[in-house]
Amino acid sequence: MWKADIDLDGDKMREECGVFGIFSPGSDVAQLTYYGLYALQHRGQESAGIAVSNGKTIRGEKGMGLVSEVFNDTSKLQRLNGDIAVGHVRYSTTGSSLLVNAQPLLVRYRNGFLSIVHNGNLVNGGELRAELEDGGSIFQATTDSEVIAHLIARSGEKDIEAAVKKAVPVIRGAYTFILMTRDKLIGLRDPKGIRPLSLGRTASGYVLASETCAFDTVGAEFVRDIKPGEMVVIDADGVRSEQIAESEGNSLCVFEFIYFARPDSNLEGRNVHMARKQLGRRLAQEHPVEADIVTGVPDSSLSAASGVAEQLGLPYEMGFIKNKYIGRTFIQPTQQIRDLGVKLKLNPVRQIVEGKRVVMVDDSIVRGTTSKHIIQMLRNAGAKEVHVLISSPPVKCSCFYGIDTSATGELIAAQLDVPGIAKAIGADSLGFLSEEGMVESIGLAKNGFCTACFSGCYPIKIGNCRHNKLMNDEEDNGGCGGCGIHI
Amino acid sequence: MWKADIDLDGDKMREECGVFGIFSPGSDVAQLTYYGLYALQHRGQESAGIAVSNGKTIRGEKGMGLVSEVFNDTSKLQRLNGDIAVGHVRYSTTGSSLLVNAQPLLVRYRNGFLSIVHNGNLVNGGELRAELEDGGSIFQATTDSEVIAHLIARSGEKDIEAAVKKAVPVIRGAYTFILMTRDKLIGLRDPKGIRPLSLGRTASGYVLASETCAFDTVGAEFVRDIKPGEMVVIDADGVRSEQIAESEGNSLCVFEFIYFARPDSNLEGRNVHMARKQLGRRLAQEHPVEADIVTGVPDSSLSAASGVAEQLGLPYEMGFIKNKYIGRTFIQPTQQIRDLGVKLKLNPVRQIVEGKRVVMVDDSIVRGTTSKHIIQMLRNAGAKEVHVLISSPPVKCSCFYGIDTSATGELIAAQLDVPGIAKAIGADSLGFLSEEGMVESIGLAKNGFCTACFSGCYPIKIGNCRHNKLMNDEEDNGGCGGCGIHI
Amino acid sequence: MWKADIDLDGDKMREECGVFGIFSPGSDVAQLTYYGLYALQHRGQESAGIAVSNGKTIRGEKGMGLVSEVFNDTSKLQRLNGDIAVGHVRYSTTGSSLLVNAQPLLVRYRNGFLSIVHNGNLVNGGELRAELEDGGSIFQATTDSEVIAHLIARSGEKDIEAAVKKAVPVIRGAYTFILMTRDKLIGLRDPKGIRPLSLGRTASGYVLASETCAFDTVGAEFVRDIKPGEMVVIDADGVRSEQIAESEGNSLCVFEFIYFARPDSNLEGRNVHMARKQLGRRLAQEHPVEADIVTGVPDSSLSAASGVAEQLGLPYEMGFIKNKYIGRTFIQPTQQIRDLGVKLKLNPVRQIVEGKRVVMVDDSIVRGTTSKHIIQMLRNAGAKEVHVLISSPPVKCSCFYGIDTSATGELIAAQLDVPGIAKAIGADSLGFLSEEGMVESIGLAKNGFCTACFSGCYPIKIGNCRHNKLMNDEEDNGGCGGCGIHI
Amino acid sequence: MWKADIDLDGDKMREECGVFGIFSPGSDVAQLTYYGLYALQHRGQESAGIAVSNGKTIRGEKGMGLVSEVFNDTSKLQRLNGDIAVGHVRYSTTGSSLLVNAQPLLVRYRNGFLSIVHNGNLVNGGELRAELEDGGSIFQATTDSEVIAHLIARSGEKDIEAAVKKAVPVIRGAYTFILMTRDKLIGLRDPKGIRPLSLGRTASGYVLASETCAFDTVGAEFVRDIKPGEMVVIDADGVRSEQIAESEGNSLCVFEFIYFARPDSNLEGRNVHMARKQLGRRLAQEHPVEADIVTGVPDSSLSAASGVAEQLGLPYEMGFIKNKYIGRTFIQPTQQIRDLGVKLKLNPVRQIVEGKRVVMVDDSIVRGTTSKHIIQMLRNAGAKEVHVLISSPPVKCSCFYGIDTSATGELIAAQLDVPGIAKAIGADSLGFLSEEGMVESIGLAKNGFCTACFSGCYPIKIGNCRHNKLMNDEEDNGGCGGCGIHI
Repeated sequence: MWKADIDLDGDKMREECGVFGIFSPGSDVAQLTYYGLYALQHRGQESAGIAVSNGKTIRGEKGMGLVSEVFNDTSKLQRLNGDIAVGHVRYSTTGSSLLVNAQPLLVRYRNGFLSIVHNGNLVNGGELRAELEDGGSIFQATTDSEVIAHLIARSGEKDIEAAVKKAVPVIRGAYTFILMTRDKLIGLRDPKGIRPLSLGRTASGYVLASETCAFDTVGAEFVRDIKPGEMVVIDADGVRSEQIAESEGNSLCVFEFIYFARPDSNLEGRNVHMARKQLGRRLAQEHPVEADIVTGVPDSSLSAASGVAEQLGLPYEMGFIKNKYIGRTFIQPTQQIRDLGVKLKLNPVRQIVEGKRVVMVDDSIVRGTTSKHIIQMLRNAGAKEVHVLISSPPVKCSCFYGIDTSATGELIAAQLDVPGIAKAIGADSLGFLSEEGMVESIGLAKNGFCTACFSGCYPIKIGNCRHNKLMNDEEDNGGCGGCGIHI
Repeated sequence: MWKADIDLDGDKMREECGVFGIFSPGSDVAQLTYYGLYALQHRGQESAGIAVSNGKTIRGEKGMGLVSEVFNDTSKLQRLNGDIAVGHVRYSTTGSSLLVNAQPLLVRYRNGFLSIVHNGNLVNGGELRAELEDGGSIFQATTDSEVIAHLIARSGEKDIEAAVKKAVPVIRGAYTFILMTRDKLIGLRDPKGIRPLSLGRTASGYVLASETCAFDTVGAEFVRDIKPGEMVVIDADGVRSEQIAESEGNSLCVFEFIYFARPDSNLEGRNVHMARKQLGRRLAQEHPVEADIVTGVPDSSLSAASGVAEQLGLPYEMGFIKNKYIGRTFIQPTQQIRDLGVKLKLNPVRQIVEGKRVVMVDDSIVRGTTSKHIIQMLRNAGAKEVHVLISSPPVKCSCFYGIDTSATGELIAAQLDVPGIAKAIGADSLGFLSEEGMVESIGLAKNGFCTACFSGCYPIKIGNCRHNKLMNDEEDNGGCGGCGIHI
Repeated sequence: MWKADIDLDGDKMREECGVFGIFSPGSDVAQLTYYGLYALQHRGQESAGIAVSNGKTIRGEKGMGLVSEVFNDTSKLQRLNGDIAVGHVRYSTTGSSLLVNAQPLLVRYRNGFLSIVHNGNLVNGGELRAELEDGGSIFQATTDSEVIAHLIARSGEKDIEAAVKKAVPVIRGAYTFILMTRDKLIGLRDPKGIRPLSLGRTASGYVLASETCAFDTVGAEFVRDIKPGEMVVIDADGVRSEQIAESEGNSLCVFEFIYFARPDSNLEGRNVHMARKQLGRRLAQEHPVEADIVTGVPDSSLSAASGVAEQLGLPYEMGFIKNKYIGRTFIQPTQQIRDLGVKLKLNPVRQIVEGKRVVMVDDSIVRGTTSKHIIQMLRNAGAKEVHVLISSPPVKCSCFYGIDTSATGELIAAQLDVPGIAKAIGADSLGFLSEEGMVESIGLAKNGFCTACFSGCYPIKIGNCRHNKLMNDEEDNGGCGGCGIHI
Repeated sequence: MWKADIDLDGDKMREECGVFGIFSPGSDVAQLTYYGLYALQHRGQESAGIAVSNGKTIRGEKGMGLVSEVFNDTSKLQRLNGDIAVGHVRYSTTGSSLLVNAQPLLVRYRNGFLSIVHNGNLVNGGELRAELEDGGSIFQATTDSEVIAHLIARSGEKDIEAAVKKAVPVIRGAYTFILMTRDKLIGLRDPKGIRPLSLGRTASGYVLASETCAFDTVGAEFVRDIKPGEMVVIDADGVRSEQIAESEGNSLCVFEFIYFARPDSNLEGRNVHMARKQLGRRLAQEHPVEADIVTGVPDSSLSAASGVAEQLGLPYEMGFIKNKYIGRTFIQPTQQIRDLGVKLKLNPVRQIVEGKRVVMVDDSIVRGTTSKHIIQMLRNAGAKEVHVLISSPPVKCSCFYGIDTSATGELIAAQLDVPGIAKAIGADSLGFLSEEGMVESIGLAKNGFCTACFSGCYPIKIGNCRHNKLMNDEEDNGGCGGCGIHI
């Protein structure tokens, strides 16, 4: 995102997208989608978009920025009247943000209009692009949504469901898709179930969303999670489901629990805040520390930190205050001002930490640069000792399923062992949650997760790709299907 | 465009687009294209865009609004560095303006990147779309540029020139295209030469533009007009030309001379202002009027009006003042205020016209509603007589070649004879320039023009199309290739 | 204003402001003022503002930019409901444009609310400021409106009319003021009548404006010009007039006729376009030239040029085209691009001027830099000879009455005689209109004008001032009353 | 601020302003002030402004909106170069937000330039205005800064310090002022010390700010709080202090501890988060509750809630999630959508509260409307019991010292006793912290606070005022000095 003195979010894994769909005749589906996207905004701040079908045609509106920036006056929503809608938020990378990659994608093909949103990454996206281009297709963006649109258009099938069924065996990766035609809303989840998708019910219809917190903002009731390999079709006849790919087990991305999802969402029936608090308790059991206070790095680690504090019987304090007004237009300090020791985005509270042995809880360490900076701030503010507890195992491997980790070479845990990391970041002690502890704390089946970033055990084979340069912009490695991704 | 009390521009034919291309290594081609588009701004105010190739990749920027609105800070141009560029301005319709239709189009296909701008209309665009969709293509907009991109991608040819040559026999209509690949700039004009395209030379390269006035703004020297059916290819080896379709004569749209082109442009070697002045002189010869003063309807009729005044030996006066500050954000008057007799956009000057017999010169009458309004204003300001002279023949037929006329049913000259029109608009007398007078005044060969809107004699056969509803927006009939166009 | 390749407006004298006031119960006075300001926009493009009284309180809205930019949505006007309004446009200087100097000024003093707009300059403004400060006043801007507000507040009078009458003898300069209280609209013109102000009638009330063209845009009828030294008070009882300073003759600024006013305005009963055309005829009589064509420098010289053409019996041609789309956000060319010979703002038309002896008509020469540039462009475009005719006498002296001329040292005619100027600007011949010819052409009494900028004969004594530095910004010498102005 | 489904901030007391001043030659004082204002943004979101002195003149920039919105590009800061600066943020009321009231105020008076920012309210502001107007002063805004500027200008003193000393005995109220002249920075705190002001040291100078958290963001070190009745003068000679009004004890507004100040600020040497946590502990001691979990209403009650949880030995949970992306441009739901039960701004977490006895901690109850709404949400989410603990006493009286409470008639605790309130808001039990408990928890002297809003015991006498209507806008009762304020 933007950079302040400490790039808090820059040293995190990043979700790529949030998706939302609604079939609810008689409701103002555009406005409901707008509220649904507000709830999913944490999954992507780069661009936002909504498309609506009125039964005859599909209209859309999308743009760069937050939902509130793209839909900054009522007229933009009012233009979008209809009964069915899809919406999308996309995350923010630096420099290569391109409007052309914003979703929903809206195309016309032989059977009429089609609008698509997705979350995730096709590992064979590069190969599919190359094959499609060889067959005479043109690409205007670098999203997987455009790949699947071509596959559907080329399927030769008159029926959208048949076309989707023909496309699914061809694609490989971690994905959820929501498709909208003139009169149907279709949800799709990959055979491993890596990316989440849930179904809810409104007074007059149904909702699909990446996270259940979006149901609350539109007054919908949770029905169930979409199953791996399942396609749900929602139209005037109601909901029907079909298993269009054999389920290959449930490999939900465990980082949804650790960091991505909003604390008030439920995944696989488990509340995220409660899971994180349990991660914190287990973490404290695995790494009991002698200390005076516990503090979390805001905002994502607060649930885990309160679990740690309760387990250790230590007071849970606000060791840091995060400035909530620092946004996109924040003017960066010059080096001269930086040297003054300014604390713009994150401020350690001297009166709280001074002379104290502090347990600092964070959800993960990716490159370690931010951790080092924050620990130093605590020491400057007078902390006597800084013990770091991380509510996940060491991240050693890159993700190829739609999450923006750093390259493997930049992952500190791929280079150093735990004592090495502790030394590198300047911690008096350092404890990571064990993989076993993590899985047990969340309380789902052991093989219910993708934990590839910790274990290197990838549930889906990663392919090569043909493109070395990306479309439109060589720096754009955000949305390319497989481009530049090799193992 | 926008509406003020009198919709001066609303009752005119409208050009659809202006195109610009430059190959000039070592120059700031993005900025030169920006200045070129400024010169072509009168050809389209809806959207503007520029794409630049740096030899490896192509980057683009486009948006809704004037050139100055889309490129409102230097950074947008600075991002676009390279050696080759294409630019486009598109005209403004009401309501259905969609960003997705803004150009340049930028695609990736099997042979790499391709960027396309065009001016004109494919009369078989609808059929081609239908065929391409049947073959599995998807469309994201409603422009002819997307049609030709698909044809090129599907040609199976490795070489762009070969691909273009394969596409040209398939398309039918009035068009100029400028295409840009990684390392080439290609210009193309339809076999009839209906839409204009000229070639200029810069210090280090070449320029293509819809009008020669764009050469002056970039310091280029006019070389020659592109010939009907000609393809010019500009690259590191210089310019080469190939006749890729048999020229079917020269049918340049005569309205370029009458209204569209800027007075300082030259078409077929003839200066537009001088041609318009001659139209005025001939008009006065054909329709000598007893009167006191001559005035033109600003801004487009001033050249013709001064020709009329000189021929009649009458003073040429500013009978009207046009408010040049009324723009897009002008707040429309309420009916209550309208009833006060406000004169916002156009103000007749009482001291000039009071008690006078006025010759009012205009370039064309389309629906006649504006003429009626303006004549009434002159009378209210005290004009004793109002004699109307029109520097073109009566417009009786719609255009299918990229010009926005009204539907035939709305053309006043399709309904009424000249005395009937005079009565309808409230003129004391009314004279149109004869078709012969028009052609002779401009001074080119008789069959050097498309005059279909006057004569109904269409140089290119008009086809039917399959689509009844347009993509993205049912009200959009701006850019659709052939959609809704039938004879 | 902004700068393009040729700074056309930068080498002109500049009006400082346009004022507008309306008392019209039952009308939407805010919207009418908005339209009135549109008509006066040529008198100032830096800032715009409107204040409205609803009989109880006064609300205002003002901002930097054009009327259309400040009032860019309907809600801003709708908030301003009431029966009386004043409006203002202010011109644009470089760098020192400050919102705090935008008008209307809106203050509360012991007798309630007061809103003020003005045009002109108090020559003793600096002294008055100093005296007022010595008496404990604070100033928040550098406008004369603030000076008069203090004088009124300090008058001790309970009645606004009495307070104005007490203030007028104290101030010295060229001015028109429009004041608005809760229930009154008051217009005031200086004893010499240097700056213009006219009265018009609407269906339900009255209008005051700098120029009569503003009456047409609001559907008002011209009544009469306000007399030098006259105060008109408009309220529920109608209009009443009082001579509050002895008229010291009529010294209307002659540049209103030559350049400032809109061609459709009438001043002292004389239409501006007709006067300019007569200036052109007389100019041609005084300086008959052997030539082929006549052209004016757009836009201000077109009336005079057509007069010259008619007198000389030569064709009147568009020797230059001005790009009407170049606005505030225009991105300036780099030197490298400038060197290419780009013609962005003004384009000479080769086919018109090539091989011709051209008479180039302009309304005035101030510093001469633009003239030199334009003449060179004509020669580059092939003109054989360039004869320059100026429809006013040489400008030799700075103005102290509210017009932005250059400093005397920069005025070319203060340095060189006519042959010297001709040589400096590169003209084959050069003729200025004589002062006698100017006065006779306009057709008003010989002593009916201020012609100080030509003659150095200042109708009002210029005082010294105490301030060397200006308020808020040392570069701001736009609105300071007398600061830095010495003789 | 803005309104979402629950107007969380609308039912709070509101701070009016934050002030910042810096004297630091050689630093980029404008940018440091910008960062300082970021830290104080929670004290006011309506407008922001900065003024800088370069030793000769003062320049300023201000506007409506957040600091990031007013200073949205670097150039605005770069224009403001100098050695001394003052900055201001002002809070947002509905409807009456006027740019004219934004600060810093920037005036010129007999001794040169003066810039002023303030926080607080003069209780005799109305009287002073009336007296000043009677003496011939004009007012352009409704702020107390303009009142004190007039008093200084009228003091007759040549020296700014002498002038301030003459003004202070005349004004009565709760205030901090920071004044800047060409070469001095002056801080001033009222004799009761109701509004806070602290002094910090930078490498090359000094800083004044409403809260110490602003020191951290500019790398400054805390020196001490300014004393009641103290004036500090900072210039090239360093800091000197003078007691210019007899200290009338320390009556710091206790709501600074309860709600206004940022948790990482220190007031009177006490950290705000620690104080709030202690308020929570004491609250739980006074009102022990049988329950399952403790939750705070985000964001302001989290410190107190964690104190309650620790004291009660109950888990501290995230019972609510607040959507941090809802901002100014949020589009309000229609009633139809509201009826769906949407939870846009605040979402109770069913899995956390369902079946639980919940202790809900909030910092205060003003009108009670929001509390009622939130409690109902908890019950709808399945909470078995809802026990409400408030970390302050019941608010029974309006504030006249610069805080926006509701009118007394709207304060629920002015109408009902505690059981009545519990019933009205739907709580199973309700406990307020005692006044004694509050004072002891904070740990300062008993008479160290203004607690008038709880006790009705006003440390400064409230006067009447003459004005019934306010300046510029009758609905504006935000900044008027004393207007409409009577006891």
